[in-house]
Amino acid sequence: PDATAAEAAAGRNAMLTKPPAALGRLEELALWYAGWRGDARPRLEAPQVVVFAGNHGVAARGVSAFPVEVTVQMVANFEAGGAAINQLAKAFGATMDVVSLELDRPTGDFTEGPAMSEAELMAAMVAGWQAVDPQADLLVTGEMGIGNTTAAAAIAAGLYGGGAEAWVGRGTGVDDAGLARKREVVDAGLARHAEANGDPLEILRRLGGREIAAMAGAILAARHHRIPVILDGFICCSAAAVLAEAAPGALDHAVAGHVSAEGAHAAMLERLGKAPLLSLGLRLGEGSGAALAIGVLKGAIACHSGMATFGEAGVSDSGA
Amino acid sequence: PDATAAEAAAGRNAMLTKPPAALGRLEELALWYAGWRGDARPRLEAPQVVVFAGNHGVAARGVSAFPVEVTVQMVANFEAGGAAINQLAKAFGATMDVVSLELDRPTGDFTEGPAMSEAELMAAMVAGWQAVDPQADLLVTGEMGIGNTTAAAAIAAGLYGGGAEAWVGRGTGVDDAGLARKREVVDAGLARHAEANGDPLEILRRLGGREIAAMAGAILAARHHRIPVILDGFICCSAAAVLAEAAPGALDHAVAGHVSAEGAHAAMLERLGKAPLLSLGLRLGEGSGAALAIGVLKGAIACHSGMATFGEAGVSDSGA
Repeated sequence: PDATAAEAAAGRNAMLTKPPAALGRLEELALWYAGWRGDARPRLEAPQVVVFAGNHGVAARGVSAFPVEVTVQMVANFEAGGAAINQLAKAFGATMDVVSLELDRPTGDFTEGPAMSEAELMAAMVAGWQAVDPQADLLVTGEMGIGNTTAAAAIAAGLYGGGAEAWVGRGTGVDDAGLARKREVVDAGLARHAEANGDPLEILRRLGGREIAAMAGAILAARHHRIPVILDGFICCSAAAVLAEAAPGALDHAVAGHVSAEGAHAAMLERLGKAPLLSLGLRLGEGSGAALAIGVLKGAIACHSGMATFGEAGVSDSGA
Repeated sequence: PDATAAEAAAGRNAMLTKPPAALGRLEELALWYAGWRGDARPRLEAPQVVVFAGNHGVAARGVSAFPVEVTVQMVANFEAGGAAINQLAKAFGATMDVVSLELDRPTGDFTEGPAMSEAELMAAMVAGWQAVDPQADLLVTGEMGIGNTTAAAAIAAGLYGGGAEAWVGRGTGVDDAGLARKREVVDAGLARHAEANGDPLEILRRLGGREIAAMAGAILAARHHRIPVILDGFICCSAAAVLAEAAPGALDHAVAGHVSAEGAHAAMLERLGKAPLLSLGLRLGEGSGAALAIGVLKGAIACHSGMATFGEAGVSDSGA
């Protein structure tokens, strides 16, 4: 981030017509955004939402409440403008792109072998990188992929330990039997790929999925372009966690949009050191919680950049 | 609310392309809004923010970190478009009105007598009622009034008991000595007006202020016009609490926009039975937290009214 811009933004913040710190987290958000954009009085005018879709070998093991065809069906729904994320992107003035990653060629079942080859991992990360519009001034990465909370839980357990027990939740809504199957599948994957321990990218390759790798690539690209990121739910954060474990500070350009109802998301945010902006019980994915948080960030920046100072407004400061 | 519209909205919600309940509180919000608007597929297009300003006799007792002139200065700032609430109203597409309530004639010091006469109370409530645009489809009531967290704390203690200790906070940022003065002032007011106990409107008249009474009037008018309301912070909620104590269910058309950093706001929301949509450490007033929550409600309604159903999108349901 740009320390000069961040300092100038802090100076401006102290002069705005409000009691010190009365806008709470909105003030932190505005200063964070100003620093990353290198502008003490920034605008947020070109947010981009990218939804990545991938299919998962482990979906065949009955880990989801929905059939695997739903991934491709939902991609069509995104393209037709009918999904929740379409409405939220539109409501908050974001462009929305959909990137399908070889939906007819699911990743390998990680209980039997690695989810992806090295070439497949790289291709997915590059697709994510390339999906980011360098002219965007905010990025939200969302995902769709039947079975991907299973992959995300496996990544989390691979990175942080604790086994399936600590990280597997109900995803789109599996019943108790489905939850038990998810746990078995994740524990089997962890056992099979124990040699990846300590190597975040290798954990991503063996236990993750293309849309998860693509989100990691997109978040990296955003860093390169100095585009702030709002993280979404459990699956997005599993991608982000790979980056954070690979390079401390890799998520300094990101905030947590929300804490979802997916069981282990709160624990993951704690590992990431990110306090969520929203807590509204969402558990949809697609980038929906992060897109909703664009509104909060827009409000923060509107206040910071639009408010009058005490001097401009002729308002007495508390010291007066 | 319109039970037919609410039921039709619930039926629609169950068919939308998402796992059941995956949008969490956004779904509740959309159904609540649909019921009050009498429209199973509503739009939110004409939100109105009204900021009421009043001055307080107790301000002379050193209960605020800011001098009393700030009320009229901030009204000028609102009118010039320079305050936080101006930026937030604009960011979320709301119109904004400012209603000054006899700023050169502060309420009576409630440690010495009632804050308002009956005529003054009625005039303020009527001003609030009349400020609401019957064509609005959402109302946010905000306030400005140096000293008004003291009045709000006195109202809360009058309605709920617990004395100053339970309800007095730092407002715009008083120091420890200021906090002690606030508590003394509130306890003195409570002792003086103990005969109002059990009569919410009389508590409002004796301990409140014009902008607080006006907010109560506006919230009532919104109910009359079937306009849903987003409640703001501690002071707005003190007005709402008078209505809730006077008539159970009087706030069914209202949701809590946020929980503020003002010490007793969380306790007040608990008394009102309202879970806040946002918790971002704001403590500014003006309607700012509620205005920020317009974004959440907009997102909820955009999803509900804009999403495709499983049938429309050709997406397999979880039962498939």
